[in-house]
Amino acid sequence: MAHIAVLGAGLVGRTIARDLADEHTVVAFDQNPEALESAFSGTEVSVAAQNLSNASVLSDLLAPFDLVVDALPGHLGLRTLRSILEAGKNTVDIAFAPEDPSPLASLAREKGLVAIVDMGVAPGMSNAILGHHVSTFSRVERFECIVGGLPRERRWPFEYRAPFSPADVLEEYTRPARYRVHGEEVSVPALSNREKLDFPGIGTLESFDTDGLRSLLKSYPEIPNMVEKTLRYPGHAALMEILRESGFFSTETVAVGDAKVRPLDVTSRLLFPHWQLTEADDEFTVMRVLIEGTNSAGDRETAQWDLLDHTDHQRSDSSMARTTGFACNAAVNLLLEGGLEPGLWFPEKIAEDRSRFDFLLGYQQRRGINYRRS
Amino acid sequence: MAHIAVLGAGLVGRTIARDLADEHTVVAFDQNPEALESAFSGTEVSVAAQNLSNASVLSDLLAPFDLVVDALPGHLGLRTLRSILEAGKNTVDIAFAPEDPSPLASLAREKGLVAIVDMGVAPGMSNAILGHHVSTFSRVERFECIVGGLPRERRWPFEYRAPFSPADVLEEYTRPARYRVHGEEVSVPALSNREKLDFPGIGTLESFDTDGLRSLLKSYPEIPNMVEKTLRYPGHAALMEILRESGFFSTETVAVGDAKVRPLDVTSRLLFPHWQLTEADDEFTVMRVLIEGTNSAGDRETAQWDLLDHTDHQRSDSSMARTTGFACNAAVNLLLEGGLEPGLWFPEKIAEDRSRFDFLLGYQQRRGINYRRS
Repeated sequence: MAHIAVLGAGLVGRTIARDLADEHTVVAFDQNPEALESAFSGTEVSVAAQNLSNASVLSDLLAPFDLVVDALPGHLGLRTLRSILEAGKNTVDIAFAPEDPSPLASLAREKGLVAIVDMGVAPGMSNAILGHHVSTFSRVERFECIVGGLPRERRWPFEYRAPFSPADVLEEYTRPARYRVHGEEVSVPALSNREKLDFPGIGTLESFDTDGLRSLLKSYPEIPNMVEKTLRYPGHAALMEILRESGFFSTETVAVGDAKVRPLDVTSRLLFPHWQLTEADDEFTVMRVLIEGTNSAGDRETAQWDLLDHTDHQRSDSSMARTTGFACNAAVNLLLEGGLEPGLWFPEKIAEDRSRFDFLLGYQQRRGINYRRS
Repeated sequence: MAHIAVLGAGLVGRTIARDLADEHTVVAFDQNPEALESAFSGTEVSVAAQNLSNASVLSDLLAPFDLVVDALPGHLGLRTLRSILEAGKNTVDIAFAPEDPSPLASLAREKGLVAIVDMGVAPGMSNAILGHHVSTFSRVERFECIVGGLPRERRWPFEYRAPFSPADVLEEYTRPARYRVHGEEVSVPALSNREKLDFPGIGTLESFDTDGLRSLLKSYPEIPNMVEKTLRYPGHAALMEILRESGFFSTETVAVGDAKVRPLDVTSRLLFPHWQLTEADDEFTVMRVLIEGTNSAGDRETAQWDLLDHTDHQRSDSSMARTTGFACNAAVNLLLEGGLEPGLWFPEKIAEDRSRFDFLLGYQQRRGINYRRS
């Protein structure tokens, strides 16, 4: 039983805090008192309404806790992770900041702290699955991950809703996608290489390149083929490409009359009411990870891992919150068990240890999230 | 030989001024000195760099002139037209302001002035063609006008360029389209009722409802069926509908960080570089007017009028500027010939007089713009 701070009470943050509160003492922090009230009234989670963008405030706030979960929007960047480490706290991070967190590894080590980052579904469990195969196969030749979280109800024109801020999603559509083909790193515009794929019980989805490999490119330079793609309903990517190429996702300030704005901020503001996932929405998370290589017996093998998860209306947990949040909480409990060396941990490195990989899978399985291998 | 002021040196204004300067003394006004320089250096047109949005300034500026052409952007509204009349000047207006100019009729009459408004291609010549048939048919039962100005080069994603400000075009996509069916006035969202149509030498275009009937609905309440549609390349309207319904054309101010902006202004700003027609662009204007009714002999007749006009690279006149500007200039010369009673004139009322209709057609025909009747 630990004393845990959860930063951010968005749809993912609230699922994380409520789940952790079954076994731990949890305080949820968010700048929005109504969000805290709606998320946690009648639960074991304590709440604190706080603006968390001020690093010096954060240090005092976090003093009483054993561990901090960062579930703030990614556009707040690595500032929060740095502040948590400077405050001397172990942490699990699902903010998915666009920046590489590696420069913070030495700070974690110096302070004797464990920071687990990118610990959601993808990045997160997709990394863990690859880490497991890197340690069990004699050679991995190809890694492919396709993943998406989507609403059941397809509403024109975007057919998309998310528990994340639109700005974070648009950032994924803007940042060039890096992957590896025949040992060469390539970079293509996000939303490229669209392909239609059929999923039983879901129908046809469209995959396209996004910059989702993140730490995997550095962790496994020896794997010659690595690609990550995002899934949406067909047409969404084409529409997003149009908006992006027309300048609607630009972060360069433009003058409009007397005002100066970043087009991305205006677009996020306009899309917010269309994209905001509510607790009433029925949605699902789908992921397929393919790993090709040579197994320990020396035979060619393709391991396929599939995830299909749905909204849990009984507990008011969206599927995207469940799959992201319970992966995060598995890591929280693994960290609390001890044994991880101080430093910055990516999920693939945790999962190279068989018992830790099983711990992550087991924690989620008990909550109805099944990664099926075939 | 008259002394004429042309307000606005956009692509249409410059064609108007250069053409009028063959027979008249012309001064072109624009707030942008570079636009004036590029449009008129080496021509007979004199220039005056002036911010024209201040009505009191306008009155002094216009004192020396016999007639004023208003070729300013429509979003400046009727303010300019009112100022011109208050300055005691006859005028021809192709600003196509969204507001109904009828309330200014009494001001024109009181001052003994002639104001010809909406005197372009559509509105403009489309109105004139209907006016002609109203006066020559015993009964008109249906009026249909489809019209568009398009670039030859179709560039993803909008396949559209215009010599007008994007804000004016977006306004056409936003204002509900009013038309008349079986004697009933209906109003539908702009961009509705999309239909594919083939045009020889052009290919397939898509028509959709826009609010282009303007004065015609009031001028001819007895015509039971009236519709006006805009032509674009297929797909443009669907894309515009998505942007409109997502809020990108909204004129309601939104707060974005510390700034307050109207989404329409941001969108116009972003689309401007994609949509701006340059003198190098090859483009065309296509219009088809259908008038069904009973002719003077008592027989059923469908009159079809077709226009297809192209960029004049020799004179650096875009087709949209030619068809709009030369219709305007025909009316300028008609007004200068005298004979029009003081008041506000819409093109349909001018063309009910056969000789005036022929004057409009003849002026344009000498400049290579042929309205073909079949």
